Amino acid sequence: MTTASTRRAVTAVRVRAIEDGRLTERPDRLVTEEPMEIRVEGAGQDAEAVAVTMRTPGHDFELAVGLCRTEGLLAGTSDLAEVRYCVADEPGQPQEYNVVTVAVRRPVDLGDRRVVAASSSCGICGKTTLDEVAVGCEPVAAGPVVARSTLVDLPDTLRKSQTVFDATGGLHAAGLFSSGGELRILREDVGRHNAVDKLVGHAVMAGGLPLSDSVLVVSGRLSFEIVQKAAVAGIPIVGAVSAPSSLAVATAERFGQTLVGFLRDGRGNIYSHPERIDVEH
Amino acid sequence: MTTASTRRAVTAVRVRAIEDGRLTERPDRLVTEEPMEIRVEGAGQDAEAVAVTMRTPGHDFELAVGLCRTEGLLAGTSDLAEVRYCVADEPGQPQEYNVVTVAVRRPVDLGDRRVVAASSSCGICGKTTLDEVAVGCEPVAAGPVVARSTLVDLPDTLRKSQTVFDATGGLHAAGLFSSGGELRILREDVGRHNAVDKLVGHAVMAGGLPLSDSVLVVSGRLSFEIVQKAAVAGIPIVGAVSAPSSLAVATAERFGQTLVGFLRDGRGNIYSHPERIDVEH
Repeated sequence: MTTASTRRAVTAVRVRAIEDGRLTERPDRLVTEEPMEIRVEGAGQDAEAVAVTMRTPGHDFELAVGLCRTEGLLAGTSDLAEVRYCVADEPGQPQEYNVVTVAVRRPVDLGDRRVVAASSSCGICGKTTLDEVAVGCEPVAAGPVVARSTLVDLPDTLRKSQTVFDATGGLHAAGLFSSGGELRILREDVGRHNAVDKLVGHAVMAGGLPLSDSVLVVSGRLSFEIVQKAAVAGIPIVGAVSAPSSLAVATAERFGQTLVGFLRDGRGNIYSHPERIDVEH
Repeated sequence: MTTASTRRAVTAVRVRAIEDGRLTERPDRLVTEEPMEIRVEGAGQDAEAVAVTMRTPGHDFELAVGLCRTEGLLAGTSDLAEVRYCVADEPGQPQEYNVVTVAVRRPVDLGDRRVVAASSSCGICGKTTLDEVAVGCEPVAAGPVVARSTLVDLPDTLRKSQTVFDATGGLHAAGLFSSGGELRILREDVGRHNAVDKLVGHAVMAGGLPLSDSVLVVSGRLSFEIVQKAAVAGIPIVGAVSAPSSLAVATAERFGQTLVGFLRDGRGNIYSHPERIDVEH
């Protein structure tokens, strides 16, 4: 399937393929990676660049809003005044699609907090010292219970629903599921943290936070930032196809989240708060 | 194999494993993820925090030095005065092993450049606007030619040489090889960018930059930052087990590097500068 969105997310190249000891030149498709600058404009303030993130184009507004939310620059839906691409300074100049401004309804104190995103992630951006790494957020709500048989099928559903991955092999996916296993929304990005920020941004724009009844499933591994972003969004259950890190598990413990890793082939490892998994069904 | 280094890189936990529809509790090992603060102390200046990066403990000095080099805060070996863990402020306080100070022989102008590392990567840290994303660096030297048959075997060698991966399944690896296929040095980290920074830091401390005769191979995917870090270190050939992004390929083109993706099962895709690969052998 090729939509406007997947077209921009994919870049066509020529590649020299080594196969069976021979070189064959053929067309190939790569996942698109481009920098996007995120600016925050508080009420009565000028817009200020707070982050540059490497991302896969598509759902840029969600990414900008989600990052502002998970970074604590935006408290919630009612805070959000507007999201826009940078308007050309002078008539005739090209529109800039790699600069997104998030306008906030109240003044924003950026202070020393120069949020400077690296590559694909922002869980600890803007913090220059160890003491500032942990974002202040409340423990998540009790939330739903998910049947084991439902949980172990989620990665397959996620994988089959990915549209860009098939073309490039270079994308991370994040999906929000209901406790019954229904895929509500899926986002893909070259950075797995961006994929999660896009989901959170979608929820902010739709007035859907906190995501207390949702299950987050990510392709690949689980790091601290993913779990922290999920905690900020109030997500009680987080699953991943691959391994979690030690700090991912510790963070899930701290915020009361259920964390499941190695979710594949009908299996899974529960690392924290197993009470949300119904093992009998 | 368990060494002092792998012990700290691994964290023991109890896990509830879902297997064959049943729950089994057993011990498990996770890759350790911990924040590390990097400070830079220019000649005659106070140390200042420039980054917090989530990393797997081990080779911390290499990581700090490598990040400073790839971020342009350290020009090279002769610039480096000292690397040290933070000394406790008062007698009796515990030594702090998550704060590393890099002392530089000349004053360092951090200026507006608040380097704020996110998670695992720093290719574009410290840049708050799009114009600042591309690090200034020279094109790499012509460098060696590598035989196809040698190149396709490198990921296997890398994988077999990983010590921590086997325990946790959660680690990225980066290896520096000679053009003849000999593994010179391997580093593992929860962040693939950290693994590359550790390699670069090792070279800085050993006086081995630029790495003009080396081949870099990374597990997983190739993003912009990896290619840029390799370019700063002068590495002419970069290979990866999985897909590159569009910007990774464009960056390799720009700096004159040979980029090979999907390096597995005796195959590989050459995306740029194929002249360094001898396809006949």
